[in-house]
Amino acid sequence: MLDHRHDDALLPLHGPDRHPNVIQELLGELYASFSSVREGRVADYIPELAKACPDDFGIVIATSGGRIYEIGDTRKEFTIQSISKPFIYALALKLLSFDFMASKIDVEPSGEAFNAISLDSESGKPRNPMINAGAIAASAQICDADPSGAVDLLLDYFEELAGRRLTINEDVYLSEKQTGHRNRAIGHLLRNFNIIESDPEPALDLYFRQCAISVTCHDLAVMAATLACQGRNPFTGGQPLPHDITVRVLALMGTCGMYDFAGQWLHDVGIPAKSGVAGGVMAVIPGRLGIATYSPPLDNFGNSVRGVAVCRQLSAGVGLSLFNQYSHTDATIRRSYQGSQRKSRRWRSDRELQILAPHRDEVRIIHVQGVLDFGGIEQLAAELVRLSNDVRILILDLAHVTECPLESSGLLDRQLCSMEDEGVEILLSRAGRLPLVSMPDWRITDRVSTYEHLDSALEAAEDQLLSWYDTVAEGPNGHGSGAIEAHGLLQQLCGEHRQILVEQMSLRAFIAGDFVIRRGDPGDELFLVRSGSFDIALDVKTGDGHSHSTRLATFGPGLCFGEIGFVAQTPRTADIIATKPGECWVLHRNAFEALSASHPDVVIALLKALTCDIGAKLSQTSVQLTLMEHY
Amino acid sequence: MLDHRHDDALLPLHGPDRHPNVIQELLGELYASFSSVREGRVADYIPELAKACPDDFGIVIATSGGRIYEIGDTRKEFTIQSISKPFIYALALKLLSFDFMASKIDVEPSGEAFNAISLDSESGKPRNPMINAGAIAASAQICDADPSGAVDLLLDYFEELAGRRLTINEDVYLSEKQTGHRNRAIGHLLRNFNIIESDPEPALDLYFRQCAISVTCHDLAVMAATLACQGRNPFTGGQPLPHDITVRVLALMGTCGMYDFAGQWLHDVGIPAKSGVAGGVMAVIPGRLGIATYSPPLDNFGNSVRGVAVCRQLSAGVGLSLFNQYSHTDATIRRSYQGSQRKSRRWRSDRELQILAPHRDEVRIIHVQGVLDFGGIEQLAAELVRLSNDVRILILDLAHVTECPLESSGLLDRQLCSMEDEGVEILLSRAGRLPLVSMPDWRITDRVSTYEHLDSALEAAEDQLLSWYDTVAEGPNGHGSGAIEAHGLLQQLCGEHRQILVEQMSLRAFIAGDFVIRRGDPGDELFLVRSGSFDIALDVKTGDGHSHSTRLATFGPGLCFGEIGFVAQTPRTADIIATKPGECWVLHRNAFEALSASHPDVVIALLKALTCDIGAKLSQTSVQLTLMEHY
Repeated sequence: MLDHRHDDALLPLHGPDRHPNVIQELLGELYASFSSVREGRVADYIPELAKACPDDFGIVIATSGGRIYEIGDTRKEFTIQSISKPFIYALALKLLSFDFMASKIDVEPSGEAFNAISLDSESGKPRNPMINAGAIAASAQICDADPSGAVDLLLDYFEELAGRRLTINEDVYLSEKQTGHRNRAIGHLLRNFNIIESDPEPALDLYFRQCAISVTCHDLAVMAATLACQGRNPFTGGQPLPHDITVRVLALMGTCGMYDFAGQWLHDVGIPAKSGVAGGVMAVIPGRLGIATYSPPLDNFGNSVRGVAVCRQLSAGVGLSLFNQYSHTDATIRRSYQGSQRKSRRWRSDRELQILAPHRDEVRIIHVQGVLDFGGIEQLAAELVRLSNDVRILILDLAHVTECPLESSGLLDRQLCSMEDEGVEILLSRAGRLPLVSMPDWRITDRVSTYEHLDSALEAAEDQLLSWYDTVAEGPNGHGSGAIEAHGLLQQLCGEHRQILVEQMSLRAFIAGDFVIRRGDPGDELFLVRSGSFDIALDVKTGDGHSHSTRLATFGPGLCFGEIGFVAQTPRTADIIATKPGECWVLHRNAFEALSASHPDVVIALLKALTCDIGAKLSQTSVQLTLMEHY
Repeated sequence: MLDHRHDDALLPLHGPDRHPNVIQELLGELYASFSSVREGRVADYIPELAKACPDDFGIVIATSGGRIYEIGDTRKEFTIQSISKPFIYALALKLLSFDFMASKIDVEPSGEAFNAISLDSESGKPRNPMINAGAIAASAQICDADPSGAVDLLLDYFEELAGRRLTINEDVYLSEKQTGHRNRAIGHLLRNFNIIESDPEPALDLYFRQCAISVTCHDLAVMAATLACQGRNPFTGGQPLPHDITVRVLALMGTCGMYDFAGQWLHDVGIPAKSGVAGGVMAVIPGRLGIATYSPPLDNFGNSVRGVAVCRQLSAGVGLSLFNQYSHTDATIRRSYQGSQRKSRRWRSDRELQILAPHRDEVRIIHVQGVLDFGGIEQLAAELVRLSNDVRILILDLAHVTECPLESSGLLDRQLCSMEDEGVEILLSRAGRLPLVSMPDWRITDRVSTYEHLDSALEAAEDQLLSWYDTVAEGPNGHGSGAIEAHGLLQQLCGEHRQILVEQMSLRAFIAGDFVIRRGDPGDELFLVRSGSFDIALDVKTGDGHSHSTRLATFGPGLCFGEIGFVAQTPRTADIIATKPGECWVLHRNAFEALSASHPDVVIALLKALTCDIGAKLSQTSVQLTLMEHY
């Protein structure tokens, strides 16, 4: 079944009411350049093909990102003809196997015309699957696999490739079936060599039908994009072909797709492509683009004149040759920095800050991005090894990894396991967004902790450092005596002031999940944490308007919260929730106001302490922000 | 001359004292797998070659990032032989032209053995430059260009390719020269067809010399990496070849490099490669890797048995086929977000904040990254067009662009100019780091403002919004009457308190460049800005320890600064500098302390106002940080 999730992506994106897109303009220029070309002749070996209008001309580009650019006669139907060949060979590989198909068809350019009877003189194997003999041999294998269901199988398969149900042009099919004497001869010759192992007639029938499938230039571009995306249709999300088959098929299109001068085509154009005698040309930039053109007049090789010209011009003009690849130097490492460059959102007491300070750079944070193919893994492994002598805790953030191919991702797993064996603590952050395909095979995920948020991983790394370097045993309520006089904020006051203030405060207990403060509440209370852990959560709108609830800060023993609303007498701007059971000392505004009259010196001292406290937080946050903005 | 800037990169990176690198381990496994292979025979057509040790085996991978992995006999010298051919052809293309060389040598796989006399029967053109006839024809052109200097030219060129001076093995050269009857026959046949237009003997001499150049496996890997990096040696930074030539040469290696079954090689392995009869194999993953192997025993085609096996195994094992490219979906857009997601570091008055709030999303910030090739430009153009209806100001941050190829970057220039024509304000941020090659051709850089820092671009965008939407004419000192009573901070106090405070403050003037506060100064003063602009600069250490002076915040009229040190009585932590002439009202600690005794209610009101002010800054900064961290 076709997956319709992405259906709206099949609509053209660039209607007349939009701003001009330079890619669309480029297509317009190509169209204008070549629409005046009058060379070539429309195929006329069967009457149906001869009916084609020589002026028809369409160009479509379909991207791996699921976008379409098109100009001209891009929705006009014509028969697919030989452009079915790479897909039929791919289907045969999918139904059977590489080894079996290698015993039936070679993969060499033939050096002869498309309809030559190019069979190996000893084995009888067709030279390649892109000539008629090879395609008929591939059809025979598909036919043998399911004689009665082959046509439905074929149409279901092409539906997945094109993203819509295609039909067979019965007139063309019957006309080709009636006049296809040469192809029938090929079929019987293949039977003679036992390449076809049963009656060749059903295989020939399937072959004539597949050549008569009606497509538009738009369909061909989507099919090409599916080959570009390793067999995944970027418009439907379906996967009609496994990726190892598309690699082989693209190689064949590169050497045998367009005509018989394989060397010249790769040298000049460098793009795997396939043409059909009805005027279609389909070209594939692996990983990037599908390109299709439609223009019926053919050159002497049987390729669309304008189609070849468009491929040549595109390749030369914007650098699309396979061999023209820029180096993405260290593009896999989005950012790599020391632990001192980024603190977690848990506010730490002065004592903890002092313990952490000399050790923060034992933590390393690496953000990985893009495709973890071999080149990407190499970049990452080099960075990991370069750092490993200085790093005790590695946070690997995988949020921006878009693809993690099986064949290379195992290498990363090995690298991480080897570092873990040597005592590096590894924390995997945001690994959950990784394509699932590769994860089950990773051993490292069974051995280390994974974190849904980077902030949680940062906090865990700080906790790990504290567990190593904090030599004083910790009580059940955190450090300190648990007495109010020992609280960090009150330490800034003299004993006399402290005592006066303490008398106005009361102890309040919370259980996990309690809302200590709700957004919109009046800011009537100031909280000094005795024990437990309290989170400020905030809905932040990121990117294009998605909202996430995010931890803005966490407060533990020795810290205070709620001071801004308390002093400003403004309503609360965020919820504060107890994430563990805990206790706070609470100062109510009424007591504070009463003190302003009776003991202004105490109030002044408290306000100074609060100003220092918020000021320290502002400094730290500003520096953090500056560090973040630097990237 | 060789550029030695990157010389230390030529040293192996992975000595025994380092942690294991999984790529290095992979090489070890390949070495172990194939070192027991005993098939093949060492070439013996000249005695010098027959002396090679059949057990010698080395594998080297050189990356586009300038890293080397190697195992085995990687520093043992052998003669380059036919691996010189792609480089000689490239040199001929560089000295002459594509068109001229196309008149001398074809680019088709020959379907015959490496030493066949494969000339076109009519034109006499060698079938391709990878067979002896083609290489001799190319040598003749180089020789003709500078008959007396050809050998030096050649050695200078190979020095740039390999990153070290190579020498010619005189024994092999003489031996080949004396016994090269077949090659001499080819030379004369080429003379007969006028492919060589003068005495063939100097061309043959150059040919024998180039085949006798001594290289190591390490050299070949560096040379391969140079081809992978479009002609730029990633270890020296030199550019021995222009990129359009490497594209053609890699295509030829793909179809004609290894043996005569071009289709099978691309189908099975998919890597451009070239072998030599001394046992070297060089393979290139465009944009990524150079690979070299050395193992003298050859198969019947004249290729190193182990070398072919390593290429096959690497391609299959880690997915290195050219046709196996993953789609980097929208990898070009590092981040794209609305203006409300990111404010500049200029603190704005409440009035300005209110004017900006409903219009911030008319600004869009897009961070671009990686290589702006055609696929990248397409992604970016699609995003720009998608947004353009809603965006009045576009900030395009180019800090992470690593490569901006000429052929595609013109498209981006066009897209930006077209948006600018339609009234979108475009601000280019951090464009200065772009590779210079493409910038001179951009028209957009002459038409719009460019900013060295993203923060400056953000501030300029806010200023632009204010200029559009602030309908009240602005006085020379910013908004407000310029009277101290109208200052934002004092607005929070009642009239009576304000009056008492104002009497304690004095006005101070600054000229641009004045240090208002110096790091380490006692925090004795509080500053209320009347006019001008004041920056906090901080040295921040980013990434791996580089320090940058960065603006932490800017304060204009109506804002205050210096409050934290003032209240906390702590030394200043950063410099504050006047960036324009301006005035501040200053409150000294002595006056403040005196007021604490005489008018505690005024001090309490001031401290509350300061707490609110810092609290508001903390809230905004925390939210900004949270938004930044979400990426």
